[in-house]
Amino acid sequence: MREQFQADLSRLGRDLVDLAELVHRAMDDARQALRTADVHRAEQVISEDARIDQLQEQLDEQAIQLLALQSPMASDLRTVVATLRMSSSLERMGDLARHIAQLTRLRYPEQVVPASVQPIFAAMSADAVEAAAHVVLLLESHNLSHADRIDEVNRLVNEHHLSVFRAIADQGWGEAGPTTTDITLASRYLERFTDHALSVSSKVRYLVTGEWASHSKEP
Amino acid sequence: MREQFQADLSRLGRDLVDLAELVHRAMDDARQALRTADVHRAEQVISEDARIDQLQEQLDEQAIQLLALQSPMASDLRTVVATLRMSSSLERMGDLARHIAQLTRLRYPEQVVPASVQPIFAAMSADAVEAAAHVVLLLESHNLSHADRIDEVNRLVNEHHLSVFRAIADQGWGEAGPTTTDITLASRYLERFTDHALSVSSKVRYLVTGEWASHSKEP
Repeated sequence: MREQFQADLSRLGRDLVDLAELVHRAMDDARQALRTADVHRAEQVISEDARIDQLQEQLDEQAIQLLALQSPMASDLRTVVATLRMSSSLERMGDLARHIAQLTRLRYPEQVVPASVQPIFAAMSADAVEAAAHVVLLLESHNLSHADRIDEVNRLVNEHHLSVFRAIADQGWGEAGPTTTDITLASRYLERFTDHALSVSSKVRYLVTGEWASHSKEP
Repeated sequence: MREQFQADLSRLGRDLVDLAELVHRAMDDARQALRTADVHRAEQVISEDARIDQLQEQLDEQAIQLLALQSPMASDLRTVVATLRMSSSLERMGDLARHIAQLTRLRYPEQVVPASVQPIFAAMSADAVEAAAHVVLLLESHNLSHADRIDEVNRLVNEHHLSVFRAIADQGWGEAGPTTTDITLASRYLERFTDHALSVSSKVRYLVTGEWASHSKEP
């Protein structure tokens, strides 16, 4: 029973890494599609999101089966419950990558992001991809240096998010309403994406250290 | 053991209703504060959100204790897992009501919403409040007519959300960048709020009927 449980728990852990890898790839593709107005790549992100949703559903079903059949106690139980929550965060991250790709598709062949704020979005989306990469590494290794890096990247993304708002508030901002709406949403999606990465990292941190430091609320 | 379990499960259900009531009040207050640029009411929503977070944490802790001590099987297990997910949706709904209140505070004494789109926002935020009211009633009664109403309200909110985008895309849209950003975000928050209400309603529907109809993805 105990051995079976450990085998099931390991499998759950591997599936969570697989899910994080799909999310990392989705955001990397969404970033490139946004930057180059690449509608084919955007379409790919949109259609691949179904795989993320499917894998999350399978993973949740396995976690519930494991709870039903093995009735884990104490720290094992907390691992399973944390896994359910992390899979839910990863699924949302996949949705947010899809939303970025949907903006790219909507405005094609135009660029979503006007030239004046392209440097901010290039940095911000590279940071979001980096956060996702560290989520993969953190889930694989449980090495908390990756959690520290996610904290740092999250701070950077929040700064970029504020820079976008400052650019929009600038006197010289002459973009049309829909452009302002698009980049407000794109910035919000990237900020939420990284916030979910932080939420995954907080859960791993808790499982590793036993101490819960709930991350500060998004502004 | 079985009696204890049923008592614990009932308590969990009552706490979920309490949480939904706080969320309903938060959105109703956020709606009124937005409409009248009432900074005191906005402040109240912002500070009350801590109670929502606290109640959600307590509820999750109870659910985990229940899993640990009672090892529920089959449908009882699914109820507990669904409760964990519903509490997480309700906590996010509280955050979104807080975000609306934060916009009101940020722009005080100005109105967040310009006159031309105030009718859309009045209808949309009334719909969001109605969705939350039906979440309370649904969680109390498990009467699926409330779930049907939430489906309907969600459709209305999605239509309003598109109306906001259409207004911004109109030739006559002469608002400044930050106003466009604010109402894009406010509209997005209301749309997400109601989408979470739908997600709670889908889970209750599943628990009542045993059939899973995952709601269609947000656009």
